Amino acid sequence: MSNEPNKNDLEIVPNEHSDRDYEINVSIPEFNCVCPRTGLPDFATIKINYIPDQHIVELKSLKLYIVKFRNMGIFHESATNKIFNDFKNVCSPRKIEVIGEFSQRGGISTVVKVK
Amino acid sequence: MSNEPNKNDLEIVPNEHSDRDYEINVSIPEFNCVCPRTGLPDFATIKINYIPDQHIVELKSLKLYIVKFRNMGIFHESATNKIFNDFKNVCSPRKIEVIGEFSQRGGISTVVKVK
Amino acid sequence: MSNEPNKNDLEIVPNEHSDRDYEINVSIPEFNCVCPRTGLPDFATIKINYIPDQHIVELKSLKLYIVKFRNMGIFHESATNKIFNDFKNVCSPRKIEVIGEFSQRGGISTVVKVK
Amino acid sequence: MSNEPNKNDLEIVPNEHSDRDYEINVSIPEFNCVCPRTGLPDFATIKINYIPDQHIVELKSLKLYIVKFRNMGIFHESATNKIFNDFKNVCSPRKIEVIGEFSQRGGISTVVKVK
Amino acid sequence: MSNEPNKNDLEIVPNEHSDRDYEINVSIPEFNCVCPRTGLPDFATIKINYIPDQHIVELKSLKLYIVKFRNMGIFHESATNKIFNDFKNVCSPRKIEVIGEFSQRGGISTVVKVK
Amino acid sequence: MSNEPNKNDLEIVPNEHSDRDYEINVSIPEFNCVCPRTGLPDFATIKINYIPDQHIVELKSLKLYIVKFRNMGIFHESATNKIFNDFKNVCSPRKIEVIGEFSQRGGISTVVKVK
Amino acid sequence: MSNEPNKNDLEIVPNEHSDRDYEINVSIPEFNCVCPRTGLPDFATIKINYIPDQHIVELKSLKLYIVKFRNMGIFHESATNKIFNDFKNVCSPRKIEVIGEFSQRGGISTVVKVK
Amino acid sequence: MSNEPNKNDLEIVPNEHSDRDYEINVSIPEFNCVCPRTGLPDFATIKINYIPDQHIVELKSLKLYIVKFRNMGIFHESATNKIFNDFKNVCSPRKIEVIGEFSQRGGISTVVKVK
Amino acid sequence: MSNEPNKNDLEIVPNEHSDRDYEINVSIPEFNCVCPRTGLPDFATIKINYIPDQHIVELKSLKLYIVKFRNMGIFHESATNKIFNDFKNVCSPRKIEVIGEFSQRGGISTVVKVK
Amino acid sequence: MSNEPNKNDLEIVPNEHSDRDYEINVSIPEFNCVCPRTGLPDFATIKINYIPDQHIVELKSLKLYIVKFRNMGIFHESATNKIFNDFKNVCSPRKIEVIGEFSQRGGISTVVKVK
Repeated sequence: MSNEPNKNDLEIVPNEHSDRDYEINVSIPEFNCVCPRTGLPDFATIKINYIPDQHIVELKSLKLYIVKFRNMGIFHESATNKIFNDFKNVCSPRKIEVIGEFSQRGGISTVVKVK
Repeated sequence: MSNEPNKNDLEIVPNEHSDRDYEINVSIPEFNCVCPRTGLPDFATIKINYIPDQHIVELKSLKLYIVKFRNMGIFHESATNKIFNDFKNVCSPRKIEVIGEFSQRGGISTVVKVK
Repeated sequence: MSNEPNKNDLEIVPNEHSDRDYEINVSIPEFNCVCPRTGLPDFATIKINYIPDQHIVELKSLKLYIVKFRNMGIFHESATNKIFNDFKNVCSPRKIEVIGEFSQRGGISTVVKVK
Repeated sequence: MSNEPNKNDLEIVPNEHSDRDYEINVSIPEFNCVCPRTGLPDFATIKINYIPDQHIVELKSLKLYIVKFRNMGIFHESATNKIFNDFKNVCSPRKIEVIGEFSQRGGISTVVKVK
Repeated sequence: MSNEPNKNDLEIVPNEHSDRDYEINVSIPEFNCVCPRTGLPDFATIKINYIPDQHIVELKSLKLYIVKFRNMGIFHESATNKIFNDFKNVCSPRKIEVIGEFSQRGGISTVVKVK
Repeated sequence: MSNEPNKNDLEIVPNEHSDRDYEINVSIPEFNCVCPRTGLPDFATIKINYIPDQHIVELKSLKLYIVKFRNMGIFHESATNKIFNDFKNVCSPRKIEVIGEFSQRGGISTVVKVK
Repeated sequence: MSNEPNKNDLEIVPNEHSDRDYEINVSIPEFNCVCPRTGLPDFATIKINYIPDQHIVELKSLKLYIVKFRNMGIFHESATNKIFNDFKNVCSPRKIEVIGEFSQRGGISTVVKVK
Repeated sequence: MSNEPNKNDLEIVPNEHSDRDYEINVSIPEFNCVCPRTGLPDFATIKINYIPDQHIVELKSLKLYIVKFRNMGIFHESATNKIFNDFKNVCSPRKIEVIGEFSQRGGISTVVKVK
Repeated sequence: MSNEPNKNDLEIVPNEHSDRDYEINVSIPEFNCVCPRTGLPDFATIKINYIPDQHIVELKSLKLYIVKFRNMGIFHESATNKIFNDFKNVCSPRKIEVIGEFSQRGGISTVVKVK
Repeated sequence: MSNEPNKNDLEIVPNEHSDRDYEINVSIPEFNCVCPRTGLPDFATIKINYIPDQHIVELKSLKLYIVKFRNMGIFHESATNKIFNDFKNVCSPRKIEVIGEFSQRGGISTVVKVK
């Protein structure tokens, strides 16, 4: 099994309430990855807001997927877009938004919002 | 009487101001239930926002209904949807939204919004 | 003079700026009344937001009107609707909203919004 | 020179960026005036939000204008409307809103919003 | 190399996710410049919110660009507009907003919003 | 039964852990009484911190005792001292402190601490 | 009657609980005076903490005394020391502390504590 | 195995740093038990602060011990004292304090501190 | 060079103000390590408060030392004690305290304080 | 006149209340200097708490003194100690404490306390 986070790490379970639009907001305050320039860790809170269709993403698998970013060199914009893509591909939600709120570096903090 | 929460646990009283649309926001910070996977308790704040039609839900019965979730094994999504369904069935509000804000588990917190 | 709060307790003064729509937000954090079921006092913050037409409500009379609820047995929904009705009747505002934010009882807090 | 605040106290300077709509938010937490009924001082935060056209109001003159309200007897609604009128007359902004957030008196706090 | 901040100080890198609209929010709490009237430093938080097109602005160069304002005499409105212009010129974003939140001077604080 | 709060309203129960010094902090945010000068209600949070000896005060009786202050004319200092005296007399604690945090009146807020 | 604040403006009433040491904390968030250098108003919160002996200071007279500082030219240190002296002289408390928390001027805020 | 919380539920592990006094603060915001009078659940945050001697308490066993209080009828004072006793008996710490911060009931909130 | 954090990673520089006792408080909100039981990352804020003697610890080396904990399996108590030991050994401060504030796991958060 | 901050920049005025010990707390949230290693600006809040003897430091001169650090290369510890020394030398206070709270750099924030 690859050590890089992969959409196949995300397990899905049937959405038992798919007859109705409802929203799930997931907040993960303990995301980190590695800055490709400095090799130092970057910290973020990742927020995933989605309206599930036929499937929802199982939380334990989501956690393990997120943990795999820890030692991966990746930029803020790419990390947020990758989570958006993987999440969308695996559970095909009716609507989805992914927000990465990255900690201050050099006196500048960054938020990336993909929807 | 069943120990499982049931829509019949919710008592209704006539809405004396049904000639007008107005909103009632109920917040219940002391909800808990049991995780079907781990058997451990899950904690949440439940928020119910509705515009009553001919009836409003009596608060004491709402409390006793909510207390019945304490030892019930149920997922976040299902608990929130069940409260939505029971509340809607019993008082037929003009508009209703139910929000379940669940405490962090494994570094991830979840909010479920049904409307 | 009756001890029950009455719309006639609310004094009005001419709105000197009636040529223009502007908003007045009044916040009264020290409202209380008596629960008709338990006989115990209920506490709330009352917020009144309105766009005056020809008259505005004088604040001192508003305070004395609010104080009269102290020993009156009345439900949350009725208290908020009564304030809405009395205020509307006495000053005929172009727009009005009354919000009653009631303190927790039995682990449940309630907000009533009339507009 | 009059001791009463007057629109002529507000100095204007050319808006060097008038080719574009942009917003200026000014917040003045140290406003006070005198209550015409009690003769006691009233405290407020004044907020002025505007989109300048050909002129912007110079901040030092704005401060001196605001200071002149200190010993003037004036009601909340009139003070907020007067600042709105004077500011509008002197710099003819494309859009303007003035908000007066007055401190609690007799357990009631008041906000006046003119736009 | 000039000591004045210049749009050429802002380096751009290709936006690898230009097939999609997404938002980047950058917050810089440590901006300062010099007041042209008093010669004293002014402090601000600068916020840049944009949807990149083909390029994003590299953060380290943004920081060095911002640092160059430290000893420059410039008004609040001009500083915010200059950052807006330089940022827009150099990376041609699909949408951009620049907000300068300036610290209190003489009891008045100012926010400038350009979009 | 008198309508005035009386030490006999406070019921005591045996302290089952009297072999040890431990502290009980009770906080009652919904106290009110009547100002003897103006006849208007005064609001306060009452805090009682004590180390029980042979008895602790039962909470429901404490609540009913506190409610009786609602229509009683009494000054801030006297109300706080009376609660101190009644509580001390009825349960003879090893140590006790009573704090009354009264809401703002005329722009002045008052805290009374008796121990 | 003089317009300058004077210790004789502070009325005292008998302390009915002088058999016991207890503390009174008074907080006055709406103090202002005039800066002797610039002629501009200075704003502060004044806190008076004391253990009364035979007398307590009546709050309404305290308010009127405080209001008299509004148009008086006086430095931060002197205003705080004057209130300390006047209060101490008029009610001879067992213990007293006066704190003046002054608003920011030129990017510097000042607190003066006398005891 | 009993369903009642028992000191034997608390597993201990050797303190590898027993040559030095150091403090461990454990905070458990999700405690609940049942009120012996009303049969309704009571919620609390439990805080355990101790200086370990030869053993520390393993956190997972602490959690399972705490969960066993969920359906037990017990008063605030007794629950806090029981946790204190069980924890002390099982790991014989050099110093220990247990604090139970219980949610509001009937407008009164209670904190129990044992040390 | 070892990948495990080692006291030799901490560089020291001479304390130029060793003629005087003064305190340095360092706060590192981005600490993480790996739980030896679950293999999952643990997050913490590490605070180091010390009075330097002849040397102070250089901050960049402290950061690199802290980063080395990221993939190390270590318990909360041991991580905090190890930082205390390494820091103390390398700069021999006059006084030192190390605090590790660890994020919630299973509904329990832990703080370890060594001094 | 030197551009480096110098104790002679600090003007003193007589302490009119030197017959009594009282405390002055000055807070300056807009301090900055230059990091000798990176050449980039460092930001801090400087707090000076002192009990004056015969003299107090005039605030405007303090501000101008502080401003002179803006372009000076100096470490956190040295800046805080220098302010302590200069302040102490110029006004010989009975007691003094200087605290420098420096903004985060590389994920680490530092506070230096000299007394």
